[in-house]
Amino acid sequence: MQFHSDNAASVHPMVWEAMRQADSADMGYDGDALSQRLDESMSDLFGTECAALWVATGTAANCLALASMVRPEGGVVCHREAHIEVDEGGAPGFYLHGAKLMLVDGEHAKITPDAIAALIDPIRDDVHQVQPHAVSITQVSEYGCTYRAEELRALSAFCQARELGLHVDGARFANAVASLGCPPREACEGADALSFGMAKNGAMNAEAIVFFDPAKADRVRYLRKRAGHLQSKGRFLAAQILAMIEHGLWLDNARKANAAAAEIAASVPDRLLHPVEANEIFLHLSETERAQLRDQGFGFHDWGADSARIVTAWDTREDHAAALAKAIGAL
Amino acid sequence: MQFHSDNAASVHPMVWEAMRQADSADMGYDGDALSQRLDESMSDLFGTECAALWVATGTAANCLALASMVRPEGGVVCHREAHIEVDEGGAPGFYLHGAKLMLVDGEHAKITPDAIAALIDPIRDDVHQVQPHAVSITQVSEYGCTYRAEELRALSAFCQARELGLHVDGARFANAVASLGCPPREACEGADALSFGMAKNGAMNAEAIVFFDPAKADRVRYLRKRAGHLQSKGRFLAAQILAMIEHGLWLDNARKANAAAAEIAASVPDRLLHPVEANEIFLHLSETERAQLRDQGFGFHDWGADSARIVTAWDTREDHAAALAKAIGAL
Amino acid sequence: MQFHSDNAASVHPMVWEAMRQADSADMGYDGDALSQRLDESMSDLFGTECAALWVATGTAANCLALASMVRPEGGVVCHREAHIEVDEGGAPGFYLHGAKLMLVDGEHAKITPDAIAALIDPIRDDVHQVQPHAVSITQVSEYGCTYRAEELRALSAFCQARELGLHVDGARFANAVASLGCPPREACEGADALSFGMAKNGAMNAEAIVFFDPAKADRVRYLRKRAGHLQSKGRFLAAQILAMIEHGLWLDNARKANAAAAEIAASVPDRLLHPVEANEIFLHLSETERAQLRDQGFGFHDWGADSARIVTAWDTREDHAAALAKAIGAL
Amino acid sequence: MQFHSDNAASVHPMVWEAMRQADSADMGYDGDALSQRLDESMSDLFGTECAALWVATGTAANCLALASMVRPEGGVVCHREAHIEVDEGGAPGFYLHGAKLMLVDGEHAKITPDAIAALIDPIRDDVHQVQPHAVSITQVSEYGCTYRAEELRALSAFCQARELGLHVDGARFANAVASLGCPPREACEGADALSFGMAKNGAMNAEAIVFFDPAKADRVRYLRKRAGHLQSKGRFLAAQILAMIEHGLWLDNARKANAAAAEIAASVPDRLLHPVEANEIFLHLSETERAQLRDQGFGFHDWGADSARIVTAWDTREDHAAALAKAIGAL
Repeated sequence: MQFHSDNAASVHPMVWEAMRQADSADMGYDGDALSQRLDESMSDLFGTECAALWVATGTAANCLALASMVRPEGGVVCHREAHIEVDEGGAPGFYLHGAKLMLVDGEHAKITPDAIAALIDPIRDDVHQVQPHAVSITQVSEYGCTYRAEELRALSAFCQARELGLHVDGARFANAVASLGCPPREACEGADALSFGMAKNGAMNAEAIVFFDPAKADRVRYLRKRAGHLQSKGRFLAAQILAMIEHGLWLDNARKANAAAAEIAASVPDRLLHPVEANEIFLHLSETERAQLRDQGFGFHDWGADSARIVTAWDTREDHAAALAKAIGAL
Repeated sequence: MQFHSDNAASVHPMVWEAMRQADSADMGYDGDALSQRLDESMSDLFGTECAALWVATGTAANCLALASMVRPEGGVVCHREAHIEVDEGGAPGFYLHGAKLMLVDGEHAKITPDAIAALIDPIRDDVHQVQPHAVSITQVSEYGCTYRAEELRALSAFCQARELGLHVDGARFANAVASLGCPPREACEGADALSFGMAKNGAMNAEAIVFFDPAKADRVRYLRKRAGHLQSKGRFLAAQILAMIEHGLWLDNARKANAAAAEIAASVPDRLLHPVEANEIFLHLSETERAQLRDQGFGFHDWGADSARIVTAWDTREDHAAALAKAIGAL
Repeated sequence: MQFHSDNAASVHPMVWEAMRQADSADMGYDGDALSQRLDESMSDLFGTECAALWVATGTAANCLALASMVRPEGGVVCHREAHIEVDEGGAPGFYLHGAKLMLVDGEHAKITPDAIAALIDPIRDDVHQVQPHAVSITQVSEYGCTYRAEELRALSAFCQARELGLHVDGARFANAVASLGCPPREACEGADALSFGMAKNGAMNAEAIVFFDPAKADRVRYLRKRAGHLQSKGRFLAAQILAMIEHGLWLDNARKANAAAAEIAASVPDRLLHPVEANEIFLHLSETERAQLRDQGFGFHDWGADSARIVTAWDTREDHAAALAKAIGAL
Repeated sequence: MQFHSDNAASVHPMVWEAMRQADSADMGYDGDALSQRLDESMSDLFGTECAALWVATGTAANCLALASMVRPEGGVVCHREAHIEVDEGGAPGFYLHGAKLMLVDGEHAKITPDAIAALIDPIRDDVHQVQPHAVSITQVSEYGCTYRAEELRALSAFCQARELGLHVDGARFANAVASLGCPPREACEGADALSFGMAKNGAMNAEAIVFFDPAKADRVRYLRKRAGHLQSKGRFLAAQILAMIEHGLWLDNARKANAAAAEIAASVPDRLLHPVEANEIFLHLSETERAQLRDQGFGFHDWGADSARIVTAWDTREDHAAALAKAIGAL
C-alpha cells in the first residue's frame, strides 16, 4: 500500500493503448502526425491559441519554459520550497546559464505579490545586483495547496506591471484544476508558460510545455534540441499527452487521486500541516505512529522529525485509501 | 517502403513486453530494480566492470559522456561530419559550457591518429589557445563505416599518450559489432565511455552511457539530473535496455538491418560512395533516378545533388529490401 | 570630505612610480619580468609556497578563485550579505556555469561552522539536491568585522572534514591583517585561495588571486584568459601589486584607513551596529542627522532607513576624520 | 629593436597625463565624469549617436559585443584565422554560453558575402543545426589587410538581408582608418558594434566597445559587471580612451605605426605574403635569414617555417624601422 509519491505510479491503460497505436513508423522527432496535433489539442483545452511541446521530464519542462523568459544575467523569483530550487539538482542554473533563483517565503508554499515586492523592491536598479526577469509558482504548491483564480489574477497583474514573466510549474496542474473546478486556463491565468505535468497522473514519461504566446515556443524548440530532449520517436510522447488530454483522462485521473487524499484527510483533520486541496497530505505523525503505520504495510515518506507526507495517485486503490484513513484515525 | 532512417523505426515486441512488465510501481528515478541491474548487465556484456546510465536520447548520451572528460575551457576533437558537430543543435556547447569542437577530416567520416596530430600538434601550449581534452569518434561512422580493432587500438594508444579522453558515439554500435563480428569491447577498445544506441535498433527511447571506468559515472549522475534527464519512471528506460541486451536482441536486430543493407549494396557496387559496412548506403543516384525510385514507392533522403542515403533498420522487410535492390539495379 | 567608499580612492604615489617604471616594453601578457616575480613575492609574504595571479577586479578574483574549487553542478556556501551574493551582478553564476550560492546567516556578516552545518546537513546526498563544494568567507566581513585565527581554524577544519574548498574574499584583507596584528597567513589560515584586494588600498586596478596550493593556479590561468582578463600589458598590474607588497605599503595603508575609522568610531560607541574592526563604520543615524552631516560637507552612503555606512581609506585625511568624529559626536 | 607585437608597446605620454589627472577621487565604477563623457565623445567621432563602454581587454570587448547579438544556441561566422577563434582561449564559448564559431576562409584573412553564403546556405533551417546569428570581421584583418568601404557595404547589406548582426573586431581599427583615409564610420560601415582597440596604439589597458544602436549597450552594461569587467576606478580607463580620441592621438599614433611598416615593406616587395596596409608585415624569411636578422638585434615572431611576422607600433623608432628595412634588403 504505497503512498510515497505519484511520480512512480503505473501507466494508465489508455496511455498504453495510445502508445501502441503510435508504433507504426512515422516521421522522426516532432515531425509525426501526433506531435503536430499538440498545438491544436492544447488550444482547444485552454480555449486560447497556444503552442505545446513535449519533453520527458518536469525538470526539463520547467527549465525550458523559464529559458523563454529569463536571460542569463537575470533572476527568477520563486518560493523557498519550490521544486526548481530544492529538487532539480541545479537544473535552472544550467539551463539559464547562471541566472539566479530569488527566494521568497509564503504560507503553504504559495507566494503573493506582497512577498515578491518585499524581495525585489530593495534591489537597486543597477548592474551590481541581479534583476528579476520572471516569477515561477507551483500549482498545486509543494505543500499540496492551490492558487485560486483571484490569487492568480493578482500575481499576473503584478508581473505585468513589473514586466516579469510568469511561469507555472504544473507538475500537478491537473489536480489543481480538479480541485478548483474551474476551466484550465483559470487555474493558470496570466501565465506565459505552463509546465503541464502528465507523468504523475497516468502517463509514462511525457510532460507538455504550454506557451500562451505561441511565438515564444519557437526559440524553445531549438533549446529543447540543444538540451538533448528532442526524442527521435517523439510520437510516443505526443501519444501520451494526447491520450491524457483528448478524452479527459487528465481530469478523471486527478479527481481520483484528489478523492483518495480527501478521504484520508477527512479522517485526521487535527493532524494536518496544510489544507489538503489536491493529492498530497502533510500531517503530524510521531515516529512511533509512523512505525505503527508501516508495520501495517503503509509506505510513505517522513517529513521532518514529527510529520509525514502521504501522496495519492490516479491508481491508488480505494480500499488502500480507506484502510489508511482508518489506520491513522485509530492511532 | 521507408528507407529514410532507422531513427523512427518501430519498437520491437520484446521491448514492448519488457516495458509492460515494468509497469508495476517501483521506486522512482533510478532506484528501481531494473535500473539497478544495468551496471551488472553491461559489465557482463563487455566482459569488464563498467557503469551504465540510461538516458532518452543519443544527444544527451554523447554530451553527458563528454562532460566526464572535457572541462569548459577545453576541446573535443571529432570528424567534421560528426553528429555532435553537425546534427545536435549545438548541444555539446551547452553541456560542456562552451568547450570547443575541433574538426578533422578523414575518409568515410573516420579519423586517424595522424589526422588528430596534424590538428593538435600546432596548438601552442599556452592559455591563448584552446587545448584538446578528448577525442570523439563514431562507430559506425556517419558514412556507415566501421573502425577495425587495430584502428581503435591506434586511436586509443594515441589518446593515452596525449592524455586525451576517448569517447565513442555508438548510435549504431550494435551494427558495428554485428559487422565486425568481434566481442563488443573490441569494437570500442580503449574508449573511456560509449554512447550505446538502442533507439535506432528496436528500443523506443532509451540509450545507455557506458563508462569503462565506473567511477566516472558518479559525477555524471548529477549532471544527468541537472540536465533534466533523470526520468521519474526510469524503470521503463532500464527495461528497454535490458530487453535489448540480456537476450541478444541488440545483435540480432543489428544483423537484420545490416543484412538488408548488404543486399541492396550488392546490387549496385559501382554506385557506392562509401563501403557499406553496416546499415547505411550512400550512393550515386541522379535526380531523375531518385524520382523514378520514389515513383515506385521508395522513401529515402537526398544526399547532395547527385546522391542519396538509404538506411535499413531492424524492421526493414526483406521483400522491401529485395525490391529496392532490384529497382536500383534496373535503373 | 568623502566617506562613501574606499573603492574610488586615489592611487598611492609609490604605485604610480612603479607603474611608470614598468612602462618600458617587455613581453606581453604575463610573460614580463614583473608578472614572473609575483609567485615569489607572495610566497615570501605568506611564508609558504603559493602562486599568484593578477586580475583587474575583485569580482574576477573571487570568481576565478572559486572556479578552482567548485564544479558547475555544485554550490558555494556564503553569508547572505556576501559580496559575491549581493553585489557582483551574478558573476559567480557566470563563472561557475550555474553553480549555486547557498546562503547562511551570521552576526556581523560572519559565518560559523555551526551555521554552515545547519544549512548543509539537511541536504540529501542525492542527485536531486545541489551539493556544496566550497565555502567563501569575507575577511574583513561585509560589516567591517574580522575573523580571528581561532575562528578561521575552526572553519578550515570544518571544510577539510567535509571536503569543501575554502575561499577568502579579501577585498579588505590588508585591513584585516592590520587589525589583527598577525602574520598574513594567519588571517586566512586554511584557505585554499585568497582574493587579495589592492584597489581599495592604494592600487589603481589590480588584485591578486593567491593559491596556497600552487598547482591550483594552473587551470585558472586558462580560465583567466577565457574570461578576457589576461591583459596584454599585464606588467602594469604586476607593478601595482609588487609596489604594494614589497615595501609594506599594503599594511601601512591599511593601518591608516583603520586608524581613521577607529577615531570616528571612538566618538560614537553607542551608535555602532557592528564592532569597528577595520575601516568601515555602520552606525545609527536618523534621516535628520544624516542631512545635518551632509550639510556640513560629509559624503557617505545611507544604510537602510535609520543608519549609515562610513568608509575610510588609505588617503582619508586626518583632519577630515577628526572633523567627522566631532560632527557626529555633536549631533 | 622590437618588432614582436604592438600589444606590449609603451604608453603614450598624453595617456599618462590624462590618467594622472583622473586620480582625484570621483564616483566609483562608471559613475565618474570621464566615463560619463564616453558616449558623447564617440558619437562626435563617428558622426552618429552611439554608446561606448570601456573594458580592459580586446577579448572582453569582442565577447561582450557579440553577446549583444548572439544567443547561446546560435553561431558567429568568422574567418578561420580570426582572433576570436584562434587566440582568445575559447572566450567566445564562455561569454556566449556555448554558441558556435562558424569558420570561413578568405584571402588575407578577410571574408566576403559569398564565402559566408557558401557556409550558411547549406545549413538546414531546423533545430538540429546551429543557426548563424552574427558575423564578425576584423579590421584590419589578422593578416594586416583592410576592408574597403565597398566591401563593408556589401557585408553589411548581406547581414541585414540575412538578419545577422555585424561585429567588427577593431583591435587595430585606428590603423585601418589611417590606412583608408576615410571617416571612422566608413571603416566600420554597417557594423552594429565595434571593438575599438586602444591598448595596441598608445593606451595602457583600455578598449572601447562602441554600439551604433545605443540601446544595445544597456544589457551589455549588466554583462560587463557579470564578467568582472566593471572596474571600481573606471575613470582611469575612460581617461585613456578620451585621451586617445579627443585630441586625435588615436589617428596620429596609427599613422606612425603604419608609416614604419610601409617603410619596411617598401624595401622587400617580393617577400610579402600579404599586402601591407597597416602595421603588420608577413614576409618570406628563411630560417637562416631570420637568424641573421636576430643576430643584428631585431626581434620578431616566426610565422610558420619560412616566414616571419613583423609588427610596428606607435613608438617604433624611425631609425629602428630604417635599420630593419635596410637589413632585410641586404639579405
